[in-house]
Amino acid sequence: MSPAPKGRGGKGGRPQSSGRGRSQPPRAGAPRGRSAQPVRRSAPRAQGLGGDQVEGRNAVLELLGAQTRPVNRVLMAAELDPSEQLDRIESLCRARRVPLEVVSRARLDREAATESHQGVVASTRPLKDFELDDLLEKTKGHAFLLVCDGLTDPHNLGSLLRTAECAGVTGIVLPRHRAARVTPTVTKVAAGAIEHLDFCSVPGIPSALERLTKSGVEVVGLAGEAKRSLFSLDLRDRPVALVVGSEDRGLAALSRKRCTELASIPQAGRTESLNASVAGAVAIYEVARQRGALG
Amino acid sequence: MSPAPKGRGGKGGRPQSSGRGRSQPPRAGAPRGRSAQPVRRSAPRAQGLGGDQVEGRNAVLELLGAQTRPVNRVLMAAELDPSEQLDRIESLCRARRVPLEVVSRARLDREAATESHQGVVASTRPLKDFELDDLLEKTKGHAFLLVCDGLTDPHNLGSLLRTAECAGVTGIVLPRHRAARVTPTVTKVAAGAIEHLDFCSVPGIPSALERLTKSGVEVVGLAGEAKRSLFSLDLRDRPVALVVGSEDRGLAALSRKRCTELASIPQAGRTESLNASVAGAVAIYEVARQRGALG
Repeated sequence: MSPAPKGRGGKGGRPQSSGRGRSQPPRAGAPRGRSAQPVRRSAPRAQGLGGDQVEGRNAVLELLGAQTRPVNRVLMAAELDPSEQLDRIESLCRARRVPLEVVSRARLDREAATESHQGVVASTRPLKDFELDDLLEKTKGHAFLLVCDGLTDPHNLGSLLRTAECAGVTGIVLPRHRAARVTPTVTKVAAGAIEHLDFCSVPGIPSALERLTKSGVEVVGLAGEAKRSLFSLDLRDRPVALVVGSEDRGLAALSRKRCTELASIPQAGRTESLNASVAGAVAIYEVARQRGALG
Repeated sequence: MSPAPKGRGGKGGRPQSSGRGRSQPPRAGAPRGRSAQPVRRSAPRAQGLGGDQVEGRNAVLELLGAQTRPVNRVLMAAELDPSEQLDRIESLCRARRVPLEVVSRARLDREAATESHQGVVASTRPLKDFELDDLLEKTKGHAFLLVCDGLTDPHNLGSLLRTAECAGVTGIVLPRHRAARVTPTVTKVAAGAIEHLDFCSVPGIPSALERLTKSGVEVVGLAGEAKRSLFSLDLRDRPVALVVGSEDRGLAALSRKRCTELASIPQAGRTESLNASVAGAVAIYEVARQRGALG
């Protein structure tokens, strides 16, 4: 299969800022900032994944440093306190011939989609959207995929992407609809991790999971109520896909059926449960630890 | 030793609504919020830890349900959409004879310290501040302490507390100064976990660590640059204290010296590092997994 564009771009991923970041209640249906791409049928499909607006110092530095995507321009707020990170962003822009515009704080606030841009916003090409088979092919028998089945909070998605990159995850599978895409908030929270991860958006998670199991991938769904402990699974020496569900409802019923194994992170406490991004992180690291990928 | 008041209180819990979500790095040296208690010798000491203003639905529900602290009153915003959680808060207030005041959204926004109060704010007694020896005594040889050495971001602290409770941590050690205390933001993010955790505030982390090692506790400091992998330690069958440092500078030099072992969470990726609360969570779960406390 060729990694040719699949799907439409269009409005694709209306970023859903259910987004109670940790502290701010989202204005439902009113994603701040730029989110909404104009509805243009002819729009390049790759916009479905997002990732084209990168905010925050770490994230922009990593974008410039990784050189995996061309950078159209970087906006930087005037009158920021001196910082080594800002100096590095400036010198990388010079070295890469990326236009760097110093603008007023007010203008940056308008252009930025997050409130935590730290004075720096970059625009770049949307993330490349691989075919699922290509993701598997690239890693042969060593795939370690993270499948996000309907996460809606961009902070959780960004945090999971950051953890995934640190733990050596080889690919991220996201649903094309009804879930957080790689919004500017995600880019900020992921702090540059997206530049080093391969993504694949799929029209439906259940059929993607079926495709994975048919390819010999062990598909492990994280399910709070599962009796089997994640720590009791043997996940060495085989390709693995870890599936995490949405914050409120967990894995969708059909996704659940398509998993080879359902497992929970055992809890010894009395309170409800782990935060979604923490549960995902603990699971990602357990898989990575077992696979010996961590040294 | 008696668990009698130690330390001073000061103004106590004026909430700190620094409120930027997860995404912003702390301003080093300027812990937002109140850190600095006014020096009043006569003030009640227990306020040093905070925890007296609890915000958010889960956190207030857990406060009412746990019954570990008396609740002075609960404020609830008028005109909230119906919700099962709100119903349960109302009925628990009735059952416990806790005054429940329905107030305007504007008033609640003024009274709340966070922007994510979800329409519910409770006031209660500050958290009990145990002596370190009492924390050890309570758990005999099974102590699993989490020592926070200068975390400044209340979101990170709240997240770690939530994880700690889920993983069966038996006590939390916090420095009395220059670090995040249990602010309303922490109560919100911890989602009720603080009601089930025992806390101890200490004037200095290094001397507390020394005290712990002398008591036979294995003191493991999480240090990104340590060669030893946390996953290679054997932490079964002995009391353990896990020490996590500040977001920007990690463990303080003197704390580092007082650890029995320094260990890192190995990273396979190319980006900088794990978020502080995620690194702490992965470490907490690794210790819990090894100790077999998770079933």
